Amino acid sequence: MTKEVLTDNMGRPYIPWEMIGNFMVDAFKAYGVPEEDAKICADVLMESDRRGIESHGCNRFKPIYLDRIDNGTLLPETKIDILKETPTTVVMDANNGMGMVASYKMMEMLIEKAKTYGMAGGAITNSTHYGIAGYWTTMAEKAGMIGITGTNARPSVAPTFGVEPMMGTNPMTFTMPTDEDFPYNFDCATSIVQNGKIEYYERMGKETPAGLVVTKDGGTMTDSGKILKDMRKGDCALLSIGGLGEATGGYKGYGFTTIVEILSAALAGGPFMKALSGKDEEGNNRMYRLGHFFFVINPEFFMGLDTFKKTTGDILRGLRASEKAPGEDRIYTAGEKEWDAWCERKDKGVPVNESVQNDLKTIRDRFGLDYTFPFE
Amino acid sequence: MTKEVLTDNMGRPYIPWEMIGNFMVDAFKAYGVPEEDAKICADVLMESDRRGIESHGCNRFKPIYLDRIDNGTLLPETKIDILKETPTTVVMDANNGMGMVASYKMMEMLIEKAKTYGMAGGAITNSTHYGIAGYWTTMAEKAGMIGITGTNARPSVAPTFGVEPMMGTNPMTFTMPTDEDFPYNFDCATSIVQNGKIEYYERMGKETPAGLVVTKDGGTMTDSGKILKDMRKGDCALLSIGGLGEATGGYKGYGFTTIVEILSAALAGGPFMKALSGKDEEGNNRMYRLGHFFFVINPEFFMGLDTFKKTTGDILRGLRASEKAPGEDRIYTAGEKEWDAWCERKDKGVPVNESVQNDLKTIRDRFGLDYTFPFE
Repeated sequence: MTKEVLTDNMGRPYIPWEMIGNFMVDAFKAYGVPEEDAKICADVLMESDRRGIESHGCNRFKPIYLDRIDNGTLLPETKIDILKETPTTVVMDANNGMGMVASYKMMEMLIEKAKTYGMAGGAITNSTHYGIAGYWTTMAEKAGMIGITGTNARPSVAPTFGVEPMMGTNPMTFTMPTDEDFPYNFDCATSIVQNGKIEYYERMGKETPAGLVVTKDGGTMTDSGKILKDMRKGDCALLSIGGLGEATGGYKGYGFTTIVEILSAALAGGPFMKALSGKDEEGNNRMYRLGHFFFVINPEFFMGLDTFKKTTGDILRGLRASEKAPGEDRIYTAGEKEWDAWCERKDKGVPVNESVQNDLKTIRDRFGLDYTFPFE
Repeated sequence: MTKEVLTDNMGRPYIPWEMIGNFMVDAFKAYGVPEEDAKICADVLMESDRRGIESHGCNRFKPIYLDRIDNGTLLPETKIDILKETPTTVVMDANNGMGMVASYKMMEMLIEKAKTYGMAGGAITNSTHYGIAGYWTTMAEKAGMIGITGTNARPSVAPTFGVEPMMGTNPMTFTMPTDEDFPYNFDCATSIVQNGKIEYYERMGKETPAGLVVTKDGGTMTDSGKILKDMRKGDCALLSIGGLGEATGGYKGYGFTTIVEILSAALAGGPFMKALSGKDEEGNNRMYRLGHFFFVINPEFFMGLDTFKKTTGDILRGLRASEKAPGEDRIYTAGEKEWDAWCERKDKGVPVNESVQNDLKTIRDRFGLDYTFPFE
């Protein structure tokens, strides 16, 4: 008797949400993450998959979290020190524990403060990868508030007229309540693309569009394989939105990337740029020491949540209904593709490719966890 | 005896700061603007010229302010209604008066609030052109705080996959204190360029770079003269940073433009997009009814102003010192070119081209103001 396995249109088998969630919690626990913390982290990774943001979901579970716990650059227990707290602000030291756990705690605190004061802001230093930025802003949105966050990251982006990777891909993320089924959710890097997109182009045998990276000679390059190779050597760098030079607004994207670099470090007095490489001068692993910032704005302290939601919804509906370019049948607003992904996946689960399947089996076998995956 | 007139490298005569300031105050007064308000407005326009942002300085004095007072779409007296005030927030109705006057009052209030509460936010509805966005954020910066602002504007930008001008060029502006002589000042539209830049290309007989505008057929166009003509008919639209389509990050710029459109309208429950055209259905002038938003963040409620300044300065110095592309001798950080302009101009004044000279003489003669300009 052959087992029927539900697969997506790329032939990837689905794992039901409950199974992948429980598995990640159990695996995090096996790695020393306390159960409550493990639930937070698993939910952040699942949320990424729910939204179809596969670059940040369970395919990152092993390489970005578990492997870093193994190599000592991520501590499974998150000791949070509150460096400063006022009625509207919080500064935390995450002591190289789980960035997602510290960020969760931060957003809980800021939402409470914004309920009372209308505005709240926070910064975390000595943190680690905090998953999709949009998870944190969505916590605010679920509480009827506007969420804003950003984070620095290891240096990969060059400034305008520069060629050296100096700043991270530095997302600046906003989520806003609307009167629709899903929020306005703008969650993306301030670089044109991240590494993962170039890896995708390479896998597909495609060239990378011109203007996404800058080479040492100040030009750009489209050979995806060579870009990845040169990037590892620091011989080419990503560019911020707007691209190379100034004529197409490259300095504007560079400005946004810099704003995120500043807010992620300067509010908490934490490290920045080259100090975030995760390597010491001898090339040995060291703590990432990332910084994040968070702002929460409560529309009830302006003209009210209902007014905010209705106006925002009207703007988004107006944009979608505007005249389309010939051949385009849809204008999207930020968060809509993610909502579509969820509608498609909610009853099925997360589709996993072979590499993720192998990761999951490896972790399961290492700790003798009692799971049989649908793809087995 | 020939009079020696100091001119800039384009042969434009300078007007000393004191003279242009006094003249604008007197002219605003002649148009019915109260003296205190006139001083604010003149300083905003001069500040733009001090920074070398000529698109928003005294060359806008007549067409964007005085002519609009004349045609009834801008009221010289600014009646401000406070629609809502809390310890951290303010919502104002500017009643179609001077946007610069309402914004000044708003920033004064928010800075006071942020001194006490650490964070403050405001929104203005039924406003008019508020000058350079960076003036408002710099007020925060001068008080040792981070300033953030944005404004909507008449529709000229199309969404990704769209061709219809729907949103304004919507600046999102940040100014941050540093330990240097000048702040980090990121003040620009979220569109790649504004109309004025295409007018500049036309005057120079240059093509507009590809990807800055979208035509009705979904493509782009480089003929500067034709772009301007089509733009007036609504037959082409500007694009947000990232350009046409999605491959070079166009949806990211579109997202930033949308965020500004939302925050400018939804916090105050004001109008947006097509309602901001300044024309009614018969093509008659009507009030612009713009909206602006403002946030102020006080670093003393995080790890302190000195820490913030030092970290920010270190980041900016690091960027400038990073490896340059061959042929480039300088990497800038936002606000640096504006500072250079000020250093060049501070002892000389503002250089004015013939068209501005004529504006100034026309206004002077209309009201019999007692000024003799250096260029006469």
